[in-house]
Amino acid sequence: MEIRVGYAELEATLVRAMERLGLEGERAARCGRLFAETTRDGVYSHGVNRFPRFRGTVEMGLVDVKAKAARVAGKGALERWTGHRAPGNLSAQECMARAMELAGEHGLGCVALNDTNHWMRAGSYGWQAAEAGFIGMCWTNAIANMVPWGAKTRGVGNNPLAMAVPRANGAHVVLDTAMSQYSFGVLAGYAARGEEPPHDAGYDAEGRISRDPKAIDAAQAGLPIGRGWRFCWI
Amino acid sequence: MEIRVGYAELEATLVRAMERLGLEGERAARCGRLFAETTRDGVYSHGVNRFPRFRGTVEMGLVDVKAKAARVAGKGALERWTGHRAPGNLSAQECMARAMELAGEHGLGCVALNDTNHWMRAGSYGWQAAEAGFIGMCWTNAIANMVPWGAKTRGVGNNPLAMAVPRANGAHVVLDTAMSQYSFGVLAGYAARGEEPPHDAGYDAEGRISRDPKAIDAAQAGLPIGRGWRFCWI
Repeated sequence: MEIRVGYAELEATLVRAMERLGLEGERAARCGRLFAETTRDGVYSHGVNRFPRFRGTVEMGLVDVKAKAARVAGKGALERWTGHRAPGNLSAQECMARAMELAGEHGLGCVALNDTNHWMRAGSYGWQAAEAGFIGMCWTNAIANMVPWGAKTRGVGNNPLAMAVPRANGAHVVLDTAMSQYSFGVLAGYAARGEEPPHDAGYDAEGRISRDPKAIDAAQAGLPIGRGWRFCWI
Repeated sequence: MEIRVGYAELEATLVRAMERLGLEGERAARCGRLFAETTRDGVYSHGVNRFPRFRGTVEMGLVDVKAKAARVAGKGALERWTGHRAPGNLSAQECMARAMELAGEHGLGCVALNDTNHWMRAGSYGWQAAEAGFIGMCWTNAIANMVPWGAKTRGVGNNPLAMAVPRANGAHVVLDTAMSQYSFGVLAGYAARGEEPPHDAGYDAEGRISRDPKAIDAAQAGLPIGRGWRFCWI
């Protein structure tokens, strides 16, 4: 059975859900919108499907819905912020906004953020920059969920990267990619549909090469890019 | 037969050769040193072996040994320079020096350079930054000498990238890599030794997959990274 939900209803529902989690005012609105826009844009791996996991991190205390990112130090175009465990997507959006402010003043701007958590769709902050007329680059580390070439155990994160270049006609170029063959969000999509990806995607807990999205997620052992192609959102 | 040449003699010989090509004073000294240091550091693909090709570009008028890069425009931490066809390695070094000056003032600095030519070893400018205590990133385009995945004809450059992170103990981390499976300099090394690389490296002029470094160079059709590993200078 397919259920179609209009965008306005999706966003409003997510905003209410954020309020129930304890986010307030414009922060609940912005957080819900980020989730809703990601699904609207077809990036099903990092949108509304992530809400249960996000709620879980709030309930576990990994995300503090009342906290807010703040500037710690800086020099000119370069600033260091700390997230105080606030919702990672809100902090990422605030840091990109600040980086653009710095770029407006200095020609370039860079904000580094620590003590934060999952920023959901990397591309959100690329689109944010491009829509404001800025070239944007952003990246994050991740827990060690990727198996380096030649190894059988996870050793590095699949550290997502977003790059955005605005175009005058609005058809901006935005690259959004993790360093793994598949993002774990994409693997979760295969798992939810009861499907397997068409190529090897990682290792299971016994160190066997695998296409089983649940086994790879359980082992947190994805394959890195470098087998001829990469699935990305552009 | 192996001939061993001490570093001082190598550098002095290259500096004299630069002077004969028409470079003057500190520019001849700096250009010769960049070639010599590259070979000293073991990056044989982009050092003294490149001198004949460099001389060729001077003789063809692609490189103007009397010209000098200059600032065209800028805002704060961001500047645009033009190379006036001056030797590419000198201009790259000057632009990295300027970027560090800007970073000293603004926290970040970025210089873009056009109307230039081969900068030789990308890593030279990474080491330059790291040795001065700066994180450095630089990259360049190249002529379309790489065959995108799924294609049989060259379509994009193998656009080299250098990233450098200084460490207090002097053991800096410097990555220097092209986006092709092998740089054309590394392929030229195989050709000079009458050897073939151990993996497919590109296409010949007839569009056949090949390990013949001369055929690949003639076709200017290298394979991109993405077959499991990448040969880089770290």
